[in-house]
Amino acid sequence: MSTDFTTTRRAFYLPDGVTYLDGNSLGPMPLAARQRVADMMADEWSQMLITGWNKAGWYVQPRLVGDRIARLIGAGAGQVVMGDTLSIKVFQAVSAARVLRPDRRVILSDSGNFPSDLYVAQGLAKAVGAELRVVAPEDVEAAINDDLAVLMITEVDYRTGRRHDMKALTATAHQHGALTVWDLAHSAGAVDVDLLGADADFAVGCTYKYLNGGPGAPAFIWTNPRLAEQAEPILQGWMGHAAPFAFDMEYRPAPGIERMRVGTPPVIAMTALDAALDVWDGVDMAELRARSIELTEAFIAGVEANCPDVTLNSPRDPSLRGSQVSFRHPHAYAVMQALIAQGVVGDFRAPDVLRFGFAPLYNDPSDVARAVDILGKILRSGSWDRPDFHQKAAVT
Amino acid sequence: MSTDFTTTRRAFYLPDGVTYLDGNSLGPMPLAARQRVADMMADEWSQMLITGWNKAGWYVQPRLVGDRIARLIGAGAGQVVMGDTLSIKVFQAVSAARVLRPDRRVILSDSGNFPSDLYVAQGLAKAVGAELRVVAPEDVEAAINDDLAVLMITEVDYRTGRRHDMKALTATAHQHGALTVWDLAHSAGAVDVDLLGADADFAVGCTYKYLNGGPGAPAFIWTNPRLAEQAEPILQGWMGHAAPFAFDMEYRPAPGIERMRVGTPPVIAMTALDAALDVWDGVDMAELRARSIELTEAFIAGVEANCPDVTLNSPRDPSLRGSQVSFRHPHAYAVMQALIAQGVVGDFRAPDVLRFGFAPLYNDPSDVARAVDILGKILRSGSWDRPDFHQKAAVT
Repeated sequence: MSTDFTTTRRAFYLPDGVTYLDGNSLGPMPLAARQRVADMMADEWSQMLITGWNKAGWYVQPRLVGDRIARLIGAGAGQVVMGDTLSIKVFQAVSAARVLRPDRRVILSDSGNFPSDLYVAQGLAKAVGAELRVVAPEDVEAAINDDLAVLMITEVDYRTGRRHDMKALTATAHQHGALTVWDLAHSAGAVDVDLLGADADFAVGCTYKYLNGGPGAPAFIWTNPRLAEQAEPILQGWMGHAAPFAFDMEYRPAPGIERMRVGTPPVIAMTALDAALDVWDGVDMAELRARSIELTEAFIAGVEANCPDVTLNSPRDPSLRGSQVSFRHPHAYAVMQALIAQGVVGDFRAPDVLRFGFAPLYNDPSDVARAVDILGKILRSGSWDRPDFHQKAAVT
Repeated sequence: MSTDFTTTRRAFYLPDGVTYLDGNSLGPMPLAARQRVADMMADEWSQMLITGWNKAGWYVQPRLVGDRIARLIGAGAGQVVMGDTLSIKVFQAVSAARVLRPDRRVILSDSGNFPSDLYVAQGLAKAVGAELRVVAPEDVEAAINDDLAVLMITEVDYRTGRRHDMKALTATAHQHGALTVWDLAHSAGAVDVDLLGADADFAVGCTYKYLNGGPGAPAFIWTNPRLAEQAEPILQGWMGHAAPFAFDMEYRPAPGIERMRVGTPPVIAMTALDAALDVWDGVDMAELRARSIELTEAFIAGVEANCPDVTLNSPRDPSLRGSQVSFRHPHAYAVMQALIAQGVVGDFRAPDVLRFGFAPLYNDPSDVARAVDILGKILRSGSWDRPDFHQKAAVT
């Protein structure tokens, strides 16, 4: 292997005594991020003031950072741009796709999609007179028909880790004249995404999970080059204008992916993300995927051999799942609190799911072994059954 | 006066030799911001990881920061929430206002509005079958009629500094059954805004100008409490859901202003903004307005007495303008470059506008005197007429 996962692990701040298996919710801080942000504030904002937009390149940063992400998701340079949040980018992509199929009114999604994507589509559908149709994940392929304007799918399920077949579903959608919007929230930086290979139409994702950009880091959006000059999202802002500083009264979309920009980009946050992406230089995505499968396979085998009362909630075939594994337990919330109290940080998802994310950049076999060991002890001893572990926090 | 403008000026990093009159484009860095961001990254993101959403209060930060801004714009606690960019917040507010007037299809704005607001309204209007009507700023009042769903106005013109009468226009709009959306980009932190006193309906604004939150800092949105429980923006995201972590399949709006949240908030950027708002503690907004008028009056008098070939492009009556002054000059671009080369930083706005923002928190009479002196020398000597000063940068 040419990717050195020992070096990538050392690039992160990981607190002592913590086995962090929640990078699929919020990635840990890359050591470079803090210094880079401090430097940007001292050397750019302070000193350059308004001229930083040119001199420090703040204006082009959303596209340059997008280029760095493009390589990780099988897209080309100049095809990805950063900004806003994932929910906003879902709105942009779905609204742009729908306009390209003006004679059709159905947006199809599945019940394994992240709720915010469904909320966004509900709001859009209500506003423009479209219809959101939601089926079970396993019924998506059969539900694709000639009514569809847009297939809006999250590739990797946030609870089960089930991975949709992007290439096959995209081909089926295209056979029926529909366009696809892929949400890569749990894919980018986690699996070997190949947008161009799958001939997908639009893709969006967040950068605070496996890409470690920090809490609320900017989102990304990709449009297939064959559609980039036709896409017209509802959200039209000055940074997506063909000539933002001409201050024309009429909107004219910028060429290509730049039209997906909206307002003024968040430079401080973008700088933290840019620093976080340094870790990816030299990482081979096929090797990353192999490492991810090694970790998740070892975790499933370890838990099933050592931990009573839990049921695998993820596909057993690694080709059908992303880089996370979940198990069901009737008292999953309390079990997760007991785990966290012992330094193994995963996530609880309602109603009964224990979720563990494996980020190959910094998780290694020692994390798997420790998590299996501690989960086994907690479940065998029943030590999770304490009043404080049943007490729910405001945000989980 | 109880506000100590000497102390507030000392709270900013202002580069040596620079007279900064472009805080209405990007405010300078408050000294507290850099340390606060570094601390947040070291003590919160690094150490707390995912638990920062609860432990460090990241989740409630958009509302707490909103409360700090509420005081500056004549709104109440619990009425303002932060997030996204100003263009996105314009979309939310206008779309929510329009839904409250379902039988009407006209959105009225003026040609002095910032172009991005017009672009946003054009995109919305096209998507939902509304009509954007744009009139000259002086014709707004007469154009308000019973066709109007929404009056969408930027209070202070980004070029001329002309200030609309929020109270009068809102009253006229209400007499005709229309709702108002006020963009406070050049008002918040610059003038004595009184949203509740004017009985406005919605307001939005950015925080990277007079509020000094940093390049691309998060925007804010306010809904009048009498509408907050009915407002239904098109953009529906999980953070605006009544129960974000229940992961329901159906969107249910959160109570009040919280429904205007969309995606995951940008915590690093919000932390910089929060630190920037410390400077406002103890600032009286009526005193701020008085200081602003003192500075702009002195600047106009000084320029008109000392600087040939320029024409005042702002209202002469201070009650009709915000905290900026602009002058026209046939070679405004080159003149501004010559000014910047001598450390007086204002802004050029096409086609022929020299724009100077006065931020009372850190600009003082010495800035006015220096700017007048240098502008006078440049214009009297013709030293602006150099090839390099005519050369336009990529972003101006």
